Amino acid sequence: MPELSNRITTLNNGGTDGWDVFYKARRRVAAGEKITELTIGEPDDKTDPEILEAMHQSAIGGHTGYAAVPGTPELREAVAKRVAAQSGVPTTSDNVLITPGAQAALFAAHLCACDAGDTALYIDPYYVTYPGSIRGAGAVPHAIVTAPENGFCPTAIQLSETPEASSLLINTPNNPTGTVYDANTLEAICGFVRDRDMWLISDEVYSTQVWEGAHISPRALPDMANRTLQIGSMSKSHAMTGSRVGWLIGPEEAIAHLADLAIVTTYGVPGYIQDAAVFALAQGKGLEDKHAKPFERRKNIAMRLLSGSKVIQVIPPMGAMYMMLDIRSTGLSGEEFAHRLLDERDIAVMPGESFGQAAAGHIRVAMTVDDQTFEQAISTLREFAESL
Amino acid sequence: MPELSNRITTLNNGGTDGWDVFYKARRRVAAGEKITELTIGEPDDKTDPEILEAMHQSAIGGHTGYAAVPGTPELREAVAKRVAAQSGVPTTSDNVLITPGAQAALFAAHLCACDAGDTALYIDPYYVTYPGSIRGAGAVPHAIVTAPENGFCPTAIQLSETPEASSLLINTPNNPTGTVYDANTLEAICGFVRDRDMWLISDEVYSTQVWEGAHISPRALPDMANRTLQIGSMSKSHAMTGSRVGWLIGPEEAIAHLADLAIVTTYGVPGYIQDAAVFALAQGKGLEDKHAKPFERRKNIAMRLLSGSKVIQVIPPMGAMYMMLDIRSTGLSGEEFAHRLLDERDIAVMPGESFGQAAAGHIRVAMTVDDQTFEQAISTLREFAESL
Repeated sequence: MPELSNRITTLNNGGTDGWDVFYKARRRVAAGEKITELTIGEPDDKTDPEILEAMHQSAIGGHTGYAAVPGTPELREAVAKRVAAQSGVPTTSDNVLITPGAQAALFAAHLCACDAGDTALYIDPYYVTYPGSIRGAGAVPHAIVTAPENGFCPTAIQLSETPEASSLLINTPNNPTGTVYDANTLEAICGFVRDRDMWLISDEVYSTQVWEGAHISPRALPDMANRTLQIGSMSKSHAMTGSRVGWLIGPEEAIAHLADLAIVTTYGVPGYIQDAAVFALAQGKGLEDKHAKPFERRKNIAMRLLSGSKVIQVIPPMGAMYMMLDIRSTGLSGEEFAHRLLDERDIAVMPGESFGQAAAGHIRVAMTVDDQTFEQAISTLREFAESL
Repeated sequence: MPELSNRITTLNNGGTDGWDVFYKARRRVAAGEKITELTIGEPDDKTDPEILEAMHQSAIGGHTGYAAVPGTPELREAVAKRVAAQSGVPTTSDNVLITPGAQAALFAAHLCACDAGDTALYIDPYYVTYPGSIRGAGAVPHAIVTAPENGFCPTAIQLSETPEASSLLINTPNNPTGTVYDANTLEAICGFVRDRDMWLISDEVYSTQVWEGAHISPRALPDMANRTLQIGSMSKSHAMTGSRVGWLIGPEEAIAHLADLAIVTTYGVPGYIQDAAVFALAQGKGLEDKHAKPFERRKNIAMRLLSGSKVIQVIPPMGAMYMMLDIRSTGLSGEEFAHRLLDERDIAVMPGESFGQAAAGHIRVAMTVDDQTFEQAISTLREFAESL
C-alpha cells in the first residue's frame, strides 16, 4: 500500500477521545443487553410523518435529479428568512449555502477560513468532532481551555493569550455543557475576533433549545455579519438528524466561493430532502417547541432528583439536550465513573474527558430517552455516585 | 471581511472552464424558451417509483436517525458483493465506505492519498470537477494531455514523463470521451502506478454502461487492490443522481481512516437512502440494463445520422452517456461552435474545451433526451455544421 496522507492518519491525534465507553455500550446493546444510553445527541423523537410524507411527494413528483448545488432557491430563501427573523440581521439567499448537515458546514467553514498550516481556535469543552474537523481541513487546532467556575465560558484574558489564528469556533447553546453565552461573553468574543480581523465560526445548531436566557447570534453584533460563518441544521430543531440537511450563513462573497467548494466536496443535497426541509420550516415554532420541550422537561426532572446531593454537582443547563455533572468529589475521573456506571448499573453516559480537558472529572448526560426511563436512570446514577 | 483562504479562492484557477454556454442555455430555458439540452450527465429517466417506495417505507419505519457513518452494514455488504462480482477481486464490507455520492468519494480519495502541496495526476480530457477536487483537497493538479489519435488514452511514454506525484486519477468508461480503456492501456497505467508506488484513484461510475469491449476494473490487476481507491455510485446505473449515494472501495486500513474522515466531512448518508440503494441493487442487472439501454440506442441513432459527414467526425463511444464530435474541420473552436449552435439552432452541447486541452475543437453531446428529440437534434446539428 502506498503511504496514506499525513492528514488522514493524524485526524484523531492518536487518541480514542474517551469514546471507549460509548462503543462498549453499543456492543452490549448489540448483544441484546438492556442498557440505558444517555450518550449521543440523537433525539428520541423520530422525524414527523408529515415531513416524511412531504419528502415522498417531492420524490415521486420527480425531484430525484441533481438539485442546485448551493441549495434549492426555495430552501435557501426559507433559511434566509428564518435566520433573519432569529437574529435580526438582514439575510438573503445569497448568504445561504445548503449543506448535507451541520458537520459538512463546519468542515466547509474551516476550508473557507484556513489554509494548510493556519491555526484555528476552538473552545474546550468541545463537541467531539471539532479538533478532527480542523485537522481534516489541514489547519492546526488550538484549544482555549475554559474553567467550570467561569461556567465553561472563555474570558477576554484567555482569548488575548491565544496565538495568531485564522478562525475561532464557538458553540452556543453549547454541547456538552448546556451553557448559553450571554451578551458579555459574546461581546468579549466578537471584540477579540474584530481586533484580530479573524473569522468567527458560530455553531448554532441548538438555537431552538434554550431554557434560560436567550440565544444571541453573534452575527447580530456590530461589524460581525461580515466575518461570521454561522452554522445551522434541521437535525435537532426538527428531529431530522439522519436526513443530513444543514446550512452555512456568511458574506455573499464567501458563500459564492463555498458554492464552488460544494461542487467538489459533496455536489449538493437531495432535492426531495430540501423540499421536506422547506415543508418542516413552514410549520413554524409549534413544531420546534414540540421537539425542544422534552429536553426542558427532563432537565427539570434531573435538577429535582439531584438537588441536595453532596456528591454530584449539577451544572444547570441553559439550553441544548445535555447536562454536565461534576463528579470530582467521588475521586474518580469522568472516564472511570462512566465505565463503572455502565459496568455496575447498565447506564451509559459520556465521560467529560471525551470533550476536552476542561470537563475532566465531569460526565455528560444526554437527555434523549423517555421521561420515565430518564427519571429512573438519574435516580440510579445518584444512588451509584453516593455509594462510591 | 477577513481574508478567504487561498484554497477556496483558487479552486477554479480563475477560469469559467467553458461553462458559459451551459449557463446561457439554462437562462434561456428559465426564461421559457425551448432549448434541447445535451449538456450534463443527468439521465432523462427519473428514479424508479419502486426505489422511492422502498425509501419511504424505510423512513416511515423509523430509519430517520443517524445512520452508521461508514455506511449501514447492509449497504456496505451489498456494495462489497457487487464490486467483487464485477471485478473478481475479493471484497468485504471493510473495503467499502458509503459516501454522499461519487463526488464526495473523489474528494475523500484525494484527501486520503495527498497531503497539502502533493501533486495529483489526472487525464485530460477530464470530468469537469477533477482539477477543482484536487485543489480543494490542497493538492496540485497535473494534467496528462492525451491525443485524439490515441483514442484519448494516456500512453506509457506520457505517463513516464510526469512529475513525482501521490496519485493518478483515471475514469473508464470515460466522461467526456466515451472511451473504455482496454487491457493494454490499463496495464500501462497500473505498471506506472506500481513502479512509482502511487495511489490509483479509479472513477468507475459508468461501469454499467459499456457498448463495446468490456469494463475492466484496475483493482483486478496484479498488486493493484492494495493501491487502488475505486469510486462508484448509484447515480448513473440506477438513475439516482439526486439521491447522492456512492462509495469508495480501498484497502481496509485506508477505509478505516476514511471512515474517521467521513465523521468530520459529512457524518454519513441518510439511512433511508441507503436502504433504497440496497433495494435497488437487489433488483439486479435487469434494472441496470433498463437505465443503460437508452444511451446505447441513441449512440446508434447518432452514428447512423452522422455517418458520411465530411465535417463532423464521430469518436465512436464505447460506453457512458456521451459522445464526442470532432468539429475541427469547421475551423471553429468547440466553444465557438457550441455558442453558435445554441444561438442559431437552440441546441445546447458542451464545448470540448470545458474538459481540458485535449478535447479542443470537439463538442460533447450528452445523450440524455428522448430518442425522437435526440434524433431531431443530431440531424439539426449535422445540417448546422455542414452549413458553416
